[in-house]
Amino acid sequence: MTINSGGGGTPHKVPTIEDVARLAGVSTATVSRSLNTPERVREGTRNAVASAVKTLGYTPNFGGQVLASRRTNTIGAIIPTMSNAIFAKALQALQETLAARNVTLLVATSQYAPDQEQAQLRTMLARGVDGIALIGNERPPEVYELLTSRRVPFALMWSHPDNLPYLSVGFDNAAAAAEVARHVLELGHRRIGYISGRTIGNDRAKARLSGVASTLAENGCELAADDVVLCDYSLEDGETAALRLLARRTRPTALICGNDVLAAGAMRGARRLGLAIPDELSITGFDDIDLATAVSPALTTVRVPHSRMGTTAGNLLLEWIDSGTQPKSVLFPADFIFRSSLTEAVPVP
Amino acid sequence: MTINSGGGGTPHKVPTIEDVARLAGVSTATVSRSLNTPERVREGTRNAVASAVKTLGYTPNFGGQVLASRRTNTIGAIIPTMSNAIFAKALQALQETLAARNVTLLVATSQYAPDQEQAQLRTMLARGVDGIALIGNERPPEVYELLTSRRVPFALMWSHPDNLPYLSVGFDNAAAAAEVARHVLELGHRRIGYISGRTIGNDRAKARLSGVASTLAENGCELAADDVVLCDYSLEDGETAALRLLARRTRPTALICGNDVLAAGAMRGARRLGLAIPDELSITGFDDIDLATAVSPALTTVRVPHSRMGTTAGNLLLEWIDSGTQPKSVLFPADFIFRSSLTEAVPVP
Repeated sequence: MTINSGGGGTPHKVPTIEDVARLAGVSTATVSRSLNTPERVREGTRNAVASAVKTLGYTPNFGGQVLASRRTNTIGAIIPTMSNAIFAKALQALQETLAARNVTLLVATSQYAPDQEQAQLRTMLARGVDGIALIGNERPPEVYELLTSRRVPFALMWSHPDNLPYLSVGFDNAAAAAEVARHVLELGHRRIGYISGRTIGNDRAKARLSGVASTLAENGCELAADDVVLCDYSLEDGETAALRLLARRTRPTALICGNDVLAAGAMRGARRLGLAIPDELSITGFDDIDLATAVSPALTTVRVPHSRMGTTAGNLLLEWIDSGTQPKSVLFPADFIFRSSLTEAVPVP
Repeated sequence: MTINSGGGGTPHKVPTIEDVARLAGVSTATVSRSLNTPERVREGTRNAVASAVKTLGYTPNFGGQVLASRRTNTIGAIIPTMSNAIFAKALQALQETLAARNVTLLVATSQYAPDQEQAQLRTMLARGVDGIALIGNERPPEVYELLTSRRVPFALMWSHPDNLPYLSVGFDNAAAAAEVARHVLELGHRRIGYISGRTIGNDRAKARLSGVASTLAENGCELAADDVVLCDYSLEDGETAALRLLARRTRPTALICGNDVLAAGAMRGARRLGLAIPDELSITGFDDIDLATAVSPALTTVRVPHSRMGTTAGNLLLEWIDSGTQPKSVLFPADFIFRSSLTEAVPVP
């Protein structure tokens, strides 16, 4: 089988499993075992096969490999975006966990668009993946129907399982955001703006907004409609949102932001207005990505359990693939990180 | 064919192309055309097929689809890392370009390890991809042999083509880095440190170092061995490297950094020492990712043509896949961006 003939010319002869078996002096079944379940093959045999694979430039034939082991040793992840580092550390940990078991991670990005996520999911199922990692739990029911009808192990990262019966490896976004709001209130802030990611199809953004809004409301400091700006997770959007909130007649003394990228953008906006952070304006983020300590003053934020989610999702997916049984969901804490971008409220002139 | 049975239980019946054809009231050949070359199918037919695909939860059978069209409508990209945003914007542009043609991008990361890149390449070839995007041009010859023997269209991004006969979509790292060095020299700096990414297997890091080193040498300001620190591209490494260079008896007045992440780390190091940037220390980066303007003062840097590389690599790969003919390589300019982290050298006490 030729994977791709480049659209023209006669395809070059592609080495087969028979060629590998011949060169290694073993049976094709041994080659297959050696590639799919190396732990069941003696080291000498494994090395002979590995050397033949390398010499011939053999890549396992997809169909044949699936028939032999029902495994592709590939796991797919669909994340909303790569354009900032929000999901980077978790993916890195997921990939390292999988690589230690010779499983390759393939990643696609959905641009926060449910349709695109669904299309990419279908592509991954068609390409053959043993399991799938997704971000968040809000998506059309047909996606979950597709996944469960295909019996593909999948893990939902970044969210609280709520009442969904699916494997979830996440944290409580609402509770973490509520804690930020409590700290902001405790420091005397009463005029507070909130810069949020768009909430459509994004349960994390929704939960963070509701955590902040309910905590402020409980403390007699209800968010009005124009105290909240919803925007894309970009520096530019964070800056624009901050400029809008800071232009109001009664200027906020604190901006709570739905993530660190928005918060860094808000800092840039505040600097454009000549406002000193934190003396004239406190700003908080969410995520604790590198950006949070690259900016100055460093951002008060929430430490999302990036690496733990990645490692655990990887291990649980592999466990599920091996055992055929869906593992129990895991909920990690997300710690409040106090840094110098947040301080006591001062009266606004 | 069951993609994955989850390792246990009886697999659910997976819908076939025949089921889709029956429901849509068309032939299986029409279903195949509708999925693989939608532009050749009437809109009404296409919609009927799309609706049947959705109702049944059908995903095209990989083997069958390849036989029908020799296409998988998937392109793979292997990038060194996702743990920072260096490659994010280009991948985003690549993905958008491909998505507009209904081609899915699958991404793997190699951790700057040639072995891992090679393993992921084999996985992608086995999974079936129509084309591949890689970063840089320095890799073992057997990788190029594998790609050319399989006749898989591939594009090398981020580098200058040099004397390689492969499709390259990049820029001149050495020339851009040399321009940074010239600006630093013109502002009177003579004590200069260089913080570089590791150069093993990384032609971009090597080219930037050589561009800086040769420009400084030509101007009588040769870099000594201990004026250069090689490290991983992380904030922490940039900070550590800066602390090391700034601890020297004759403190540098400028730190040229191999990328923006290292430069942001160096800024954090300088702040720890209480040094004012740029008055007591100038710092420059390379990339012009968001981080460059999130930090304060904003970084003088080189604007890497992220989006143009992504879009062009996507278009040229699709062109190559369609025509069977390797397109000509493209070299983009990479502009020097002057911002406030660089200023005139002041005498060091």
